Amino acid sequence: MDAPRALAPLDALGILQQDAPNLGSERVELVDALGRVLADDLASLCDHPGVDNSALDGYACRVADTAGAREAAPARLRLVGEAPAGRPYAGRVGPGEAVRIFTGAAVPDGADGIVPVEASREREGGRVELLQPARAADVRRRAQDLADGQVYLHRGRRLDAAAIGLAGGMGHASVPVARRPRVALLTTGDEVVDPGRPLQPGQVYDSNAASLMALGQAAGAAMLLLPRVGDDAAALDRALEQAGSVDLLLTSGGVSMGRYDRVRDLLFGQGAVRFWKVAMKPGGPALYGRLGELPVLGLPGNPVSSMVVFLVLARAFLDAALGRTDPPPYLDRRPARAGTPFRGAALKEGLPRARLTYGEQGLVAAALTNQSSGVLRSMSEADALAVVPAGRDIAPGEAIDVIPLAGHLR
Amino acid sequence: MDAPRALAPLDALGILQQDAPNLGSERVELVDALGRVLADDLASLCDHPGVDNSALDGYACRVADTAGAREAAPARLRLVGEAPAGRPYAGRVGPGEAVRIFTGAAVPDGADGIVPVEASREREGGRVELLQPARAADVRRRAQDLADGQVYLHRGRRLDAAAIGLAGGMGHASVPVARRPRVALLTTGDEVVDPGRPLQPGQVYDSNAASLMALGQAAGAAMLLLPRVGDDAAALDRALEQAGSVDLLLTSGGVSMGRYDRVRDLLFGQGAVRFWKVAMKPGGPALYGRLGELPVLGLPGNPVSSMVVFLVLARAFLDAALGRTDPPPYLDRRPARAGTPFRGAALKEGLPRARLTYGEQGLVAAALTNQSSGVLRSMSEADALAVVPAGRDIAPGEAIDVIPLAGHLR
Repeated sequence: MDAPRALAPLDALGILQQDAPNLGSERVELVDALGRVLADDLASLCDHPGVDNSALDGYACRVADTAGAREAAPARLRLVGEAPAGRPYAGRVGPGEAVRIFTGAAVPDGADGIVPVEASREREGGRVELLQPARAADVRRRAQDLADGQVYLHRGRRLDAAAIGLAGGMGHASVPVARRPRVALLTTGDEVVDPGRPLQPGQVYDSNAASLMALGQAAGAAMLLLPRVGDDAAALDRALEQAGSVDLLLTSGGVSMGRYDRVRDLLFGQGAVRFWKVAMKPGGPALYGRLGELPVLGLPGNPVSSMVVFLVLARAFLDAALGRTDPPPYLDRRPARAGTPFRGAALKEGLPRARLTYGEQGLVAAALTNQSSGVLRSMSEADALAVVPAGRDIAPGEAIDVIPLAGHLR
Repeated sequence: MDAPRALAPLDALGILQQDAPNLGSERVELVDALGRVLADDLASLCDHPGVDNSALDGYACRVADTAGAREAAPARLRLVGEAPAGRPYAGRVGPGEAVRIFTGAAVPDGADGIVPVEASREREGGRVELLQPARAADVRRRAQDLADGQVYLHRGRRLDAAAIGLAGGMGHASVPVARRPRVALLTTGDEVVDPGRPLQPGQVYDSNAASLMALGQAAGAAMLLLPRVGDDAAALDRALEQAGSVDLLLTSGGVSMGRYDRVRDLLFGQGAVRFWKVAMKPGGPALYGRLGELPVLGLPGNPVSSMVVFLVLARAFLDAALGRTDPPPYLDRRPARAGTPFRGAALKEGLPRARLTYGEQGLVAAALTNQSSGVLRSMSEADALAVVPAGRDIAPGEAIDVIPLAGHLR
């Protein structure tokens, strides 16, 4: 167990992605689908528009009848009917005829253009004066937006409000989505106390249960919080029995080099370790393996480290299990310039917390001053993690990649 | 009702913000607080760290006892005990003494520095050799992260995973949050059919119910979907009776200049109109007023227009009702460069859909090709709305502001 070679973050991420199960799918009502991930391609059930229809309120007529029409020399047409949306005009528009038409209404047979109502005057005796030529471009063509049978939303897409609207417009009342991964979370540590209780000297409040539950919820997992255990091997065994059938066990704490790091002992003793230690800072002691069939990701106990390892590694596992086709947070980077120095670590990739400024010349990233992995406050003030290659310092003005956090913390 | 002067979007937004009610607050468990908005400032209930403690696993001792220590000339100290996290060493570290210490454990009285375990050798007879000088910087000072009584999260902050973790670290098991605004949604139109049913010629699927419910959920509202009504004034009256006691009624459709625009007729006939028509495209026919005490925001029926007016105006109302201190979407802009031409409208501010590219030189926005407000597909392909001032065309390479969509569609 001594000083194993630390894995590169990208290799650790690859192992988590490969190890993620296929969760199967379920069908949910569209109104319950926000944030879920599409499990199949979604094809349109209709043409949209279903028929040639009017882009505006006005008059449908023959373009040829309005050539050269203007305020001083309007085209005078006979008004033969009206076509509100959803109630098509049944007849045919002949030469010299017009139909009052409303936005979205079917353009009657015979008509091939629209004059907006603002460019018209209705006259007595069922006549209308049109003050400009009818435009064919104001007829929206059948299927110009959606064609029946064509796929417009692809498997692996996370459903946001625009995608949900589009699914509705295609005629889907429900959609197939990936089942939520079930994740049990176990925080450990003798010195850790639930918020809301009194603190004894030397104790700290457990922030990891709250932050990791929220990160899991934001990632689309069904989260189960196990009762916290101290640095006691027997209690850890008992707690794990309560995890039941989940897709991933997340632990926080107990994975370092210390004598009381029980999660490490358990996984090395009774499980199969895939890796221990990742060449990243914060987050170095991350541990991954299986207890029987159960994948176990051991996050460090430090509040910032546990969040960063969640974003880099747990999200890779969860996103893969959900079949998401967009990149997981660690790979979803933007180019920026350093606004402050960023100091690299000798053998580890740095993922320091940064604040972003959006300027005319692009994105500028400033390192937050306290990068201690115990300082959760800086996480709540950060917009992004910067990516600092091992062994490199980055000077102000130099290029630096950043991982924006907002979408991932939700 | 003819051709009223259209309001500037910013003025319309200001009216919605001013009209938003104060919803009061409720207390929720931290684990249920994701996405809620803090209703009060939150002060820490503890110092963090609560005591001076060790930043690493190693040995706590007196710095003076390790001056000049190195591999070839270690400092030899007497090991007098150990201090695991949460179980402080009870005694005092005297000259020539060291205590084995673990990350997060209280630094014993008398000790003022730490030597990492990697730079040590334990020897027989209760002695330890330290191969480098102890560092005072590896003692984390009491309250260096959080000071008891100090506010670290402010009223109006939307709670993401980092803020929730911080609230837990401050000792809060539950937090005061703004009550969710209750929003009733009514979609209208004779030609509109629920997804999942067969379409008749001239009919279209209702995408607005789905997209607006999702936008409301993403905004943190408690959404109530009313049964849809056709272009029939009596049915509209009946539907509104079902809205009951809500904070906002959203309608879609029925606000244009047409003869069958019933929402407009209702609000002008029985309500008090604050504005009708906003100088924006899409979204021009937006209508706002009150029916009795009930605020009513009439969105256009076009799928894209209704989403854009939701983001610009409904979000201003909802964000203000929630007391959010971050800017609503319309004001949350980034500077970019145009990657394609953006054509302005004569008297309206354009909010066309765009795709963003993050390059070394900053953000580039490309207009999506079909900007018809009926084309929902483009909304699902867009990253942002661009802001094109009225009467101006923007050429490739020119500066343009964009409103990123991701966080608002969720």
